[in-house]
Amino acid sequence: MSTKNSGGKSFHMKPGEFRRWGRVVVDWIADYQEGVADFPVLSKVKPGQIRDSLPGAPPTEGEGFETILDDVANLILPGVTHWQSPSFFAYFPANTSGPSILGEMISAGLGVQGMLWATSPACTELETRVLDWLVGMLGLPEKFLSTSSGGGVIQDTASSASLCALLAARERATNFAVNDRGCEERLVAYASTQAHSSIEKAVKIAGLGSRNLRIVDVDGDFAMRPDDLAAKIEEDKSSGFIPCFVCATVGTTSSNAMDPLPEISRIAKQHGLWCHVDAAMSGTAALCPEFRYIHDGLELADSYCFNPHKWMFTNFDCDCFYLADRAALIQTLSVLPEYLLNEATKSGAVIDYRDWHIPLGRRFRSLKLWFVIRHYGVEGLRYHVRRHVELAQNFASWVSKDERFELAAPAPLNLVCFRHRGGDSFNQTLMDGLNQDGKLYLTHTRLDDRLTLRFCVGQTMTEASHVERAWENILDKTAELENR
Amino acid sequence: MSTKNSGGKSFHMKPGEFRRWGRVVVDWIADYQEGVADFPVLSKVKPGQIRDSLPGAPPTEGEGFETILDDVANLILPGVTHWQSPSFFAYFPANTSGPSILGEMISAGLGVQGMLWATSPACTELETRVLDWLVGMLGLPEKFLSTSSGGGVIQDTASSASLCALLAARERATNFAVNDRGCEERLVAYASTQAHSSIEKAVKIAGLGSRNLRIVDVDGDFAMRPDDLAAKIEEDKSSGFIPCFVCATVGTTSSNAMDPLPEISRIAKQHGLWCHVDAAMSGTAALCPEFRYIHDGLELADSYCFNPHKWMFTNFDCDCFYLADRAALIQTLSVLPEYLLNEATKSGAVIDYRDWHIPLGRRFRSLKLWFVIRHYGVEGLRYHVRRHVELAQNFASWVSKDERFELAAPAPLNLVCFRHRGGDSFNQTLMDGLNQDGKLYLTHTRLDDRLTLRFCVGQTMTEASHVERAWENILDKTAELENR
Repeated sequence: MSTKNSGGKSFHMKPGEFRRWGRVVVDWIADYQEGVADFPVLSKVKPGQIRDSLPGAPPTEGEGFETILDDVANLILPGVTHWQSPSFFAYFPANTSGPSILGEMISAGLGVQGMLWATSPACTELETRVLDWLVGMLGLPEKFLSTSSGGGVIQDTASSASLCALLAARERATNFAVNDRGCEERLVAYASTQAHSSIEKAVKIAGLGSRNLRIVDVDGDFAMRPDDLAAKIEEDKSSGFIPCFVCATVGTTSSNAMDPLPEISRIAKQHGLWCHVDAAMSGTAALCPEFRYIHDGLELADSYCFNPHKWMFTNFDCDCFYLADRAALIQTLSVLPEYLLNEATKSGAVIDYRDWHIPLGRRFRSLKLWFVIRHYGVEGLRYHVRRHVELAQNFASWVSKDERFELAAPAPLNLVCFRHRGGDSFNQTLMDGLNQDGKLYLTHTRLDDRLTLRFCVGQTMTEASHVERAWENILDKTAELENR
Repeated sequence: MSTKNSGGKSFHMKPGEFRRWGRVVVDWIADYQEGVADFPVLSKVKPGQIRDSLPGAPPTEGEGFETILDDVANLILPGVTHWQSPSFFAYFPANTSGPSILGEMISAGLGVQGMLWATSPACTELETRVLDWLVGMLGLPEKFLSTSSGGGVIQDTASSASLCALLAARERATNFAVNDRGCEERLVAYASTQAHSSIEKAVKIAGLGSRNLRIVDVDGDFAMRPDDLAAKIEEDKSSGFIPCFVCATVGTTSSNAMDPLPEISRIAKQHGLWCHVDAAMSGTAALCPEFRYIHDGLELADSYCFNPHKWMFTNFDCDCFYLADRAALIQTLSVLPEYLLNEATKSGAVIDYRDWHIPLGRRFRSLKLWFVIRHYGVEGLRYHVRRHVELAQNFASWVSKDERFELAAPAPLNLVCFRHRGGDSFNQTLMDGLNQDGKLYLTHTRLDDRLTLRFCVGQTMTEASHVERAWENILDKTAELENR
């Protein structure tokens, strides 16, 4: 036995070099955190500008890390929209925090692939434990605990969680026949006009077809109308369709409307539909007992998800997806080839999370979530969530006191939908002008067919001063436009 | 305008604290890299052991970071299977490297969510540029370039890439009717007996049904038989089925078999099937001109994927997925709600990667890939890939020279399938004994209905000495079992 080439040559970064550059990168991140408020929030680059600034071919020989870091600062940063800016009020937040970044670092350093329990028991069991913690932290029904018939799993996004819920619903409704012989039945799903776009995407992916997604009407507050849901289900049933799935939203993306879970889940139960609850952003509010009413009715739901990567200081990606009956999902997604067989799996005593989502491989994502919960403690998380809600409510009160503006929807938590009374064009110009100035970033939606501005408070470093300054900027820009 | 609570109180980790703990974590990772060879590769914990070692409830008040890190070392590490050990020869590798971890750190620090071009132009454009680089680096057909009709995108895993390919195939075959009205047609897909389990999973998810996945026979080398593919397609067509998709594998998971792409892609073209090529692990070999033959025939394929997170020193997750016709995928997956509308999207001048995969949100994953390519340079990557292949070939030669063992399949690259001639039970005992000793980790498959051991060389820190020691351990354990 011999090896011709004894090796020795290596292009790897040695642990000693990693120590050196790791410190530089840590300082780089800390500098970024200290300076992020000073960048224009929305990147000002033109299409193609970043791509064209990068070489057309990769280097043949390796480059020094200093050069690479310089390029991050000079070439990449100008093309970054600063989601971590305290003046980022657009979309829904994607906040993060020091402990989360540190957890992500250790996850990358360990380089564990947790597709099976056996491929890293800690990756699976820490996740199970932390997701059980969150059931208590949010006051979710006990059926979502891993110690009951259910359990939780980390998914990349709520889009993927909703897809998994729909797939399990599809199979439950057909006694697992679609998985076997294809989608022959006339299956239908339900969501409101305000449901997230991922529901339509899931309905297409799962082979139901978008015309079999029934769009349920909403009330004046943009919440799903249970009477319309019930009517549509009954109509479908009498026409020979098989209703299998309804998605209720706790905090719609457009306006943070709260679908009435008690009625929706009761109707779903009555007609045998799988009821999935999408609380992607707003679920985090339930950390605080005073906001837990948003989950009233969840006792009858089949699945639920919320995203710590939106509002719980955990960097993207981290969606927590819960099921009341984990067996339905596992039976839907499990395919077990010989090369993944192992004693632990065969024993049935362990969870193999690969059967709980679309991909096979998975990162050690529970580390960052665990770090966040332990660093803040439940009370620390509550404090900051309450603070964000308070800041948003202040903003809403300023809007409602200024007769040139109006609130466009109820603002139950940290999202305020508002508009100037000057019409769509005025609001579009106002928003574009504010975003181009770079002092803040906010986005729009349409409510009652009118352009509406969305102001969401949820970034880690957002304080009262940033919200106050944002309102001042809005007033200044409004005055400028009114006087034009 | 006023804010009642002036704030000030905060539980966030300040940038200064992040500097301090960031350094500690960087050193922790470097220590881990220096010591990982000394851990038992496969974790020895029992089911439930890690979970039971963790508190049943989260802390009310935050804890110090030192406590958290201590728990990582004391509670978590014993439950980790060390994928980064130089003696990890199991499954396919999931290797990583210093520059990749540093890229992941910056990505976490920036906390960018790149669902749209507008939400961070650099996140999209760096990805486009780097994926174009890789077309040249692997010698892929030019139609996969973003400057042609195609383009590449980073997905989490090859499972998701294959699902996207199947969905686009489904829609192309039905003129986008399934997306609209549901899966009414009798669509069928094809893959060999050796294709990855994710193909069956995708066929179920997409609503085709697993009985409509035709399992094509393989030859003596476990490569798909084109004659059987052609025969099955013709039989299906004459029976009224609509063949829409075939997955060819470049390096099967079981034995690294190479499906004959020229014939498969030609048959697919002839019959109008979408041809997807899954080169999850082995694609990386094409960095070296002498291994590029594995991609012969790719000119006629519709899509292709390989995973830098397996064998290209880029930490999980990072799958590169290429399409010849990006429009087919975008039309399949695009749903555009008002709250995501923006000028750049409307202009058509930019890529919005959210339409290229299942989730909506996305991390800035191209950073780590860019860091890796620049740190190593093309020649540095080639050097290490060649070295891994050489080490595996050495191992194969030792196996073939020992008459007690036999090679179970061709070993074209870095995976060696072998077995002791003593039968299934002997091999199972041999493998279990080796893995329990903890000096190395290897897994199994079944070939020709016989238990077969898989030895894959691809971890970053694996050197000749580790492969030599592994063979010595195998010989020692064999002698021990033979003398029992």
